[in-house]
Amino acid sequence: MVVNKVGKEIPQTVAENHLLYEGELTHVETYKEASRKIKPVLPNEKKIVGSLKEAIEKTGLKDGMTISFHHHFREGDFVLNMVMEEIAQMGIKDLTIAPSSIANVHEPLIEHIKNGVVTGITTSGLRDKVGAAISEGVMEKPVVIRSHGGRARAIATGDLPIDVAFLGAPSSDEYGNANGTAGKATCGSLGYAMIDAKYADQVVILTDTLVDFPNTPISIAQTDVDYVVKVEAIGDPEGIAKGATRFTKNPKELLIAEYAAKVITHSPYYQQGFSFQTGTGGAALAVTRFLREAMLKDQMTASFVLGGITNAMAELLEEGLVEKIIDVQDFDHLSAISLGENSKHYEIDASMYASPASKGAMVNQLDTAILSALEIDTDYNVNVMTGSDGVIRGAVGGHPDTSKGCKMSLVITPLIRGRIPTVVDHVNTVVTPGTSIDVLVTEVGIAINPKRQDLIDYFKEVDIPKYTIDELKQKAYDIVGEPSPIQYGEKVVALVEYRDGTLIDVVRNV
Amino acid sequence: MVVNKVGKEIPQTVAENHLLYEGELTHVETYKEASRKIKPVLPNEKKIVGSLKEAIEKTGLKDGMTISFHHHFREGDFVLNMVMEEIAQMGIKDLTIAPSSIANVHEPLIEHIKNGVVTGITTSGLRDKVGAAISEGVMEKPVVIRSHGGRARAIATGDLPIDVAFLGAPSSDEYGNANGTAGKATCGSLGYAMIDAKYADQVVILTDTLVDFPNTPISIAQTDVDYVVKVEAIGDPEGIAKGATRFTKNPKELLIAEYAAKVITHSPYYQQGFSFQTGTGGAALAVTRFLREAMLKDQMTASFVLGGITNAMAELLEEGLVEKIIDVQDFDHLSAISLGENSKHYEIDASMYASPASKGAMVNQLDTAILSALEIDTDYNVNVMTGSDGVIRGAVGGHPDTSKGCKMSLVITPLIRGRIPTVVDHVNTVVTPGTSIDVLVTEVGIAINPKRQDLIDYFKEVDIPKYTIDELKQKAYDIVGEPSPIQYGEKVVALVEYRDGTLIDVVRNV
Repeated sequence: MVVNKVGKEIPQTVAENHLLYEGELTHVETYKEASRKIKPVLPNEKKIVGSLKEAIEKTGLKDGMTISFHHHFREGDFVLNMVMEEIAQMGIKDLTIAPSSIANVHEPLIEHIKNGVVTGITTSGLRDKVGAAISEGVMEKPVVIRSHGGRARAIATGDLPIDVAFLGAPSSDEYGNANGTAGKATCGSLGYAMIDAKYADQVVILTDTLVDFPNTPISIAQTDVDYVVKVEAIGDPEGIAKGATRFTKNPKELLIAEYAAKVITHSPYYQQGFSFQTGTGGAALAVTRFLREAMLKDQMTASFVLGGITNAMAELLEEGLVEKIIDVQDFDHLSAISLGENSKHYEIDASMYASPASKGAMVNQLDTAILSALEIDTDYNVNVMTGSDGVIRGAVGGHPDTSKGCKMSLVITPLIRGRIPTVVDHVNTVVTPGTSIDVLVTEVGIAINPKRQDLIDYFKEVDIPKYTIDELKQKAYDIVGEPSPIQYGEKVVALVEYRDGTLIDVVRNV
Repeated sequence: MVVNKVGKEIPQTVAENHLLYEGELTHVETYKEASRKIKPVLPNEKKIVGSLKEAIEKTGLKDGMTISFHHHFREGDFVLNMVMEEIAQMGIKDLTIAPSSIANVHEPLIEHIKNGVVTGITTSGLRDKVGAAISEGVMEKPVVIRSHGGRARAIATGDLPIDVAFLGAPSSDEYGNANGTAGKATCGSLGYAMIDAKYADQVVILTDTLVDFPNTPISIAQTDVDYVVKVEAIGDPEGIAKGATRFTKNPKELLIAEYAAKVITHSPYYQQGFSFQTGTGGAALAVTRFLREAMLKDQMTASFVLGGITNAMAELLEEGLVEKIIDVQDFDHLSAISLGENSKHYEIDASMYASPASKGAMVNQLDTAILSALEIDTDYNVNVMTGSDGVIRGAVGGHPDTSKGCKMSLVITPLIRGRIPTVVDHVNTVVTPGTSIDVLVTEVGIAINPKRQDLIDYFKEVDIPKYTIDELKQKAYDIVGEPSPIQYGEKVVALVEYRDGTLIDVVRNV
């Protein structure tokens, strides 16, 4: 065993093949950008093919290759399952899949893993049954978990070369100009797919809405696309919003949101032209509502909001409280519509959103971000990946990216969930190092990271209950007791990469 | 001497170091895309620097490197001269400059060449005094002439690696998000600059209009920019339109335009949703006007127009006669405004416009294009580079790209200019091979390339005077006599690359 900078034990055999986490920006260095193989398309050549099978054949996909997908349809995605089923029927094996994330709806993956079609996975997240299967040890090779920015970095540096990207597009013309704002199943931004399109050797666009050439706006360009195939349906728009956009009436969540908004509006960053990211979930959406009220009262506007975008953000834009929306992903239908209609709602790719290896990501310009946690420990390390039972069920998303990039990061979470404490001595899995977290906000009160003495001083007079994080942990333990340690096996089922590609943690089988 | 496929003699010593032209698509093959060196920008780092000198110092520019510029300001450009003067003062020598084109206004280059600051040039065009100096043999190394698509290809394949791109931007924020539609000197599309931004190791944005972060729309993104410097003025918008947009009353030009419009409207490609590119110049603009009348009469609309865009095109868009404008460059102020205001007026980069090595350029989707000529010979080879005196004074632009990509290319030109025949036995310099040209249109009548027997048949009943190209040449010779051959020297002063990177011709000193 070796121990990395956040105190996590990494097995010797794993450590021999990976750089270990040594601090947030230690391994961000000058590099030669990865590049794709390009087969030029000549004047009379067509890209449209008759079937998905024909598209796969034309790419020359074979055993051992890496293919990718995007997760903009979230729980409504049809593309990954459709493509994998076709590939399985064609008898291709030993593939590594590199979707930007994996949802519950991708449960058929378990069969493909068992049948040897899929032998490698890299993703931001794994939910429910697929997560449980991985945690049980269904795969020989560990899954590689990367943040959105980390994935973009890995693609740009060549750590994650993609042979073929299969990208669902709500609309496309026959030459491959595609966007997510027109069509039958609009998902809005194609930010994660845009990166795959630029770096994959070959790109297949799957669409259910073929439009006349030239399709605009162009999120994915003809110059990045090899083949276009029309399919019956690429996704269910209803599935995009699933779970993301409920408006909470839960008093605990509302209290957390109120405290969080208060932290932001009493911080040194709350100035004319400030910027923020709030993400999804009941409490996060409520923060946006409270911020709105404060901004109206204070006659303050924000220069931009970033991230995964919800209609709550689109409404702020319409109201003029926010100057611009910078959008890598939409979490509901209305924000997808806003992207299509409002020129101040702007689509960006995952590298521009969050890559630590880019010439400057948007997260670097962010004042404050609201982040979630399954667990946070007394060193402020955060777990958004594994449950209290040690089973993989979450997604890293932009958590480590945004928290490091912004000037003040807030983790908002109830002190306990059910009979489980959220604030603990040691998180099961470290996804974001405590050095990236500035303030923890719970319904009981807040804790400010001691490294931010400036904020501790600044908030002295602010009327919110303040504690040390040890005190908050003790409050949680006082209510539900100290959690008993999880009994893990010996097998490493997932490697958790920090955004610079170093190993911040591993997940063992349960 | 060796002779290439268009019959041009290439000196042995030159031929030993270059592939020779063997046909339009012979050397377009699968390749590994070139890539840049990226120095990641960390969360607290700033890109704005205090002066141009400081920006140059920070890039570490040194003797022997290659730097690039764009020519969107055309005769109004201040950036190239400003940067070269600073570099000369800093004592840096032996640079290769790779502007997308060179204008009259860049006359100070001659001094930089004489002083050894500039020892290599690659460009699409060379005008007036710089062209004359090159033709006189002021440089030791021949200039490399590339089309717009050929330049994008050379950058993407690694034939033209760029160390530092100095890109003028009408507006930029401090993090490098730039566009050409806001600011003091709006040039509209930044299509040529967008390619340099994506491939150059380092990118410096020069702007006279710094705006709040985040600047949108984003033509050049922060993820492609290393430094931003504010200067007094980057260009004179008046200079952009110089010579490009006059409305002709010349009866000869109007007759040519009328015939050209008739060829288009009587061709098999004139159907609902057709597409065209007309470019600039009096006759070309008149073609657009005649086409407009025909489309109104026939209740026909075009799916898109492409290219260098003028206000004549923007008006067609406003009128609904054209569905979309696909814009790599704007030739006047009003079209730049249209790009900023009309979402159906869409900006693309040079690779997407015309690169033969891309996964499919826009020119491949074009029905018909109107092109110019300084000379055209009886094999339909076209010269747009050297004058009748053999001196370099033109620009290749998109000529070989568009003519090859589109389904029907028209060269429009008066039969004679002054006392000089335009239709000749052999052009001084072959820029576009005759195999790419379908119809020659003069004020006397048209000639259809014999390789297009389909068009010859199709136009049988159309009421335009028709000749063989030999007959048109003879008519020209009958009026002004056969031109006497130019007395060239032995020195090769320019290499003319076809769009695939092969040598289609060389220019010798005069």
